[in-house]
Amino acid sequence: MYIHHINFVVEDLEAAVERFECILGQTVERRDGLPGRGALTARFKLGPTWLVLVQPIDPDGAPGRHLAAHGEGFFLCSLGVDDLDATADRLREAGVGLAGPPRRGLDNWRVQDLLPDYSLGEQFQITEELAGSD
Amino acid sequence: MYIHHINFVVEDLEAAVERFECILGQTVERRDGLPGRGALTARFKLGPTWLVLVQPIDPDGAPGRHLAAHGEGFFLCSLGVDDLDATADRLREAGVGLAGPPRRGLDNWRVQDLLPDYSLGEQFQITEELAGSD
Repeated sequence: MYIHHINFVVEDLEAAVERFECILGQTVERRDGLPGRGALTARFKLGPTWLVLVQPIDPDGAPGRHLAAHGEGFFLCSLGVDDLDATADRLREAGVGLAGPPRRGLDNWRVQDLLPDYSLGEQFQITEELAGSD
Repeated sequence: MYIHHINFVVEDLEAAVERFECILGQTVERRDGLPGRGALTARFKLGPTWLVLVQPIDPDGAPGRHLAAHGEGFFLCSLGVDDLDATADRLREAGVGLAGPPRRGLDNWRVQDLLPDYSLGEQFQITEELAGSD
């Protein structure tokens, strides 16, 4: 298990990209829309981990609701696994609540959200990168 | 540059360790006091990144003040670099504000905090692992 991605919600993606390019000393690697979550994203690769900046464009999506409730900042931490279904089974058996069924994230990411009440109120999730797609 | 560690502040270290052992499917790797910050820590290794749980024992330390202001959850993200002084110089030249001088973290970690107002209000920092010590 490793940290697959860590997301920060931002009000203005371009301003945030400019700042993180300064902090990280590298240019942004990918930009994508994420229509299912009502957001635009830009991301940097730091070792095995994507640092993802997320700007809501729909106030009713999960990122939009988080921005309205908490302002800019940390949004979620996603743990990379080889087998999402097996990990989800292990979590269920350990009493860790899962939030809904697996969903598709960016690229070939298949994502399972955990219930935040078990993890310090923060959103943790698990991600598997599906083979043969991007 | 990679994510060296990501810290979450908790009220009860033992309860948080138990939950994260379930989520991560691994036992906690290290426990340490951090007297300079008024905190106890427990951490897990996820690839190159330490996930650190931080329980304040001094309400006037930085973790204690964060817990009082924000409750449990994300506390900081530290970026691993080979040369902290060179990176600090680059950040200064890029207009990224640094918070105080470098300080000693856990183990052989030498840490430079950045001013949060440049990074979405969240605490980012850089960490160099010094050679020859632990």
